[in-house]
Amino acid sequence: MKFTINRPAFINQLNNVLRAISSKTTIPILTGLKMVVTDHSVILTGSDADITIESTLDASDSSYGLSIEEPGAIVLPARFFNEVIKKLPDKQATIEVFNGLQVRITSGTAEFTINGQDANNYPHLPEVESENTVELASDMLREVIDQTRIAVSKQESRPILTGIHVTLNNGILTAVATDSHRLAQRKVELPETADRDFDIVLPGASMTELAKMIADEKDGVKMQITENQALFIFGNTHFYSRLLEGNYPETSRLIPESSDTRLEITASDLLASIERASLLSHESRNNVVKLSVNPENKIATVSGTSADVGNVEEEINADQIVGNPLEISFNPDYMRDALKSFGQTKILISFTTALRPFTLVPTEEKANFVQLITPVRTY
Amino acid sequence: MKFTINRPAFINQLNNVLRAISSKTTIPILTGLKMVVTDHSVILTGSDADITIESTLDASDSSYGLSIEEPGAIVLPARFFNEVIKKLPDKQATIEVFNGLQVRITSGTAEFTINGQDANNYPHLPEVESENTVELASDMLREVIDQTRIAVSKQESRPILTGIHVTLNNGILTAVATDSHRLAQRKVELPETADRDFDIVLPGASMTELAKMIADEKDGVKMQITENQALFIFGNTHFYSRLLEGNYPETSRLIPESSDTRLEITASDLLASIERASLLSHESRNNVVKLSVNPENKIATVSGTSADVGNVEEEINADQIVGNPLEISFNPDYMRDALKSFGQTKILISFTTALRPFTLVPTEEKANFVQLITPVRTY
Repeated sequence: MKFTINRPAFINQLNNVLRAISSKTTIPILTGLKMVVTDHSVILTGSDADITIESTLDASDSSYGLSIEEPGAIVLPARFFNEVIKKLPDKQATIEVFNGLQVRITSGTAEFTINGQDANNYPHLPEVESENTVELASDMLREVIDQTRIAVSKQESRPILTGIHVTLNNGILTAVATDSHRLAQRKVELPETADRDFDIVLPGASMTELAKMIADEKDGVKMQITENQALFIFGNTHFYSRLLEGNYPETSRLIPESSDTRLEITASDLLASIERASLLSHESRNNVVKLSVNPENKIATVSGTSADVGNVEEEINADQIVGNPLEISFNPDYMRDALKSFGQTKILISFTTALRPFTLVPTEEKANFVQLITPVRTY
Repeated sequence: MKFTINRPAFINQLNNVLRAISSKTTIPILTGLKMVVTDHSVILTGSDADITIESTLDASDSSYGLSIEEPGAIVLPARFFNEVIKKLPDKQATIEVFNGLQVRITSGTAEFTINGQDANNYPHLPEVESENTVELASDMLREVIDQTRIAVSKQESRPILTGIHVTLNNGILTAVATDSHRLAQRKVELPETADRDFDIVLPGASMTELAKMIADEKDGVKMQITENQALFIFGNTHFYSRLLEGNYPETSRLIPESSDTRLEITASDLLASIERASLLSHESRNNVVKLSVNPENKIATVSGTSADVGNVEEEINADQIVGNPLEISFNPDYMRDALKSFGQTKILISFTTALRPFTLVPTEEKANFVQLITPVRTY
């Protein structure tokens, strides 16, 4: 195996694959980066068993300045190899296997020799067949992930809740996550997929990583699904994620259908007030902020208290306040996450009683996106 | 006590004073920020007992938009107060003491109430008399600190070595630091101070903080010294540092006066080579890099080895190589710190034998700045 490549372009690709490589893995070879050189490409693979990322650097893409002398394959210590490539003196680097598993890296007058591992010992990639393919716009996919991953459970006690439940049915893609205290649900119409359907649970952590990787992706993302894997294809990258096994709980009946108190407000305005109130609630034992809604005189206030530090009270700038008067307490961190997912848009917050979950939806396209939060009982 | 102030300018000043405030202090009131309001100014004080920073916000400076209604004094929880001020909704904030030790902070519709502490319980500032004043250019002072603090000891076993030894004598300011493995010495001619002298040891940590604070300072820094304190005055800030007690060891005889092997090279070039070699040495048990100098064929190479990972060898780009051939091993982290302190300049490295300390000096103005490193015996 021997090839020469432009360092800057190579570093970009290494950084992509490194996202999947954890130093905390229990399978030692997965701390390595697999490098396979064919006659016309270099294929980099990194994996932590949950996620596998494979980047193909094609010699026909001139930005790589790729010149292949001899095909082959090797596994190299990933973080260390990346550090070496980053610090080499010259614009180009030559990477060559010799004496079986030794790798020589030369650039300028610097010559590194690194001990590699046999690529045959690297786990095989999951096989994903291409019969069930859905094509998604990358910005839409990223939005769906970002809007739902906040409600994914961080606790391993119910592993299925650490995932995002994604279904495709009758041309509608639905993504739901809940940690049993809050819930986020996003729907997207995909009329061209009306003939296909699936029902899977994608790990929240994998999807967070995927959302970062496709942030700059202009083209679409192809999604393929098998029994226990999802594959996302974009640019020169294959992103594999394990699926979570088990039945996701039924969530649709959790969303209340009627409301007794309603508030219209710009999400970012309320977010700023909640962040101020949480300065106090974070100093207190039970992290709770109170919202008092008085539709009669059109006033709503947010307040937070810490016995040690002090308190804060603030009238919020609502566009509309209707229904019954209400005092309700909630975890401001849940509220903050939910509000952030709406950006600068105007939202409608609908309450029933002080002890029942309340919902946040955009005032436009109410049916497509909902955040639900369970209040906290304070008496 | 009551005043109104522009938040952005206030936040800048709070950030300055916060540098001195540690949450890990053993004196509880020092987690607080002391705020004294006079008829025409607000004085902010923060301290960790080693460093005290005092900022005076004068009402005559229109950037503060300062309007004072009532003088007074209070101590507030520093980090928390800073978070509150940062997150307030309006451009201005009004701060008012009521009910003795309660503080009301209002901005827009938000109203915070915070519990303060009695300012009389805050430790008194050290008294520094102004008879022994030296005026220093702020960029020169920062350079002197940055060039010497790298050699300050991090170990408390010999507390005096955690300081920078600063003397003024015959119009020459000398700063020296050593952790007994390396030494940094910088001299500056200050002819206008020929009539004054001092001999003090300033804590390295205080000076690092001071160097950061004066980074953007255009005007000079006034330095005043008493028996156990140094005071640095710049802009609207008083920066007090405790002095270290005890005798600093005699260091001048540690610097060798002759050499047998000499190397001239651009500091940043050698730095890059050392950083590559240290990638390997950091993976090995004894963090050592080897330099081989061969004056006969004008070649010098740097190499690093890790039994587990591999090795690297690199010919370095020296301008001149003269004297006896030499193989010498050293801690690459010490070398890196020393090389960084020279920036892009050309340096002369002078060796005697493989077991004796070697020196790095700029090829121009050799007498003013020296970094010394003790090699490592590898056999």
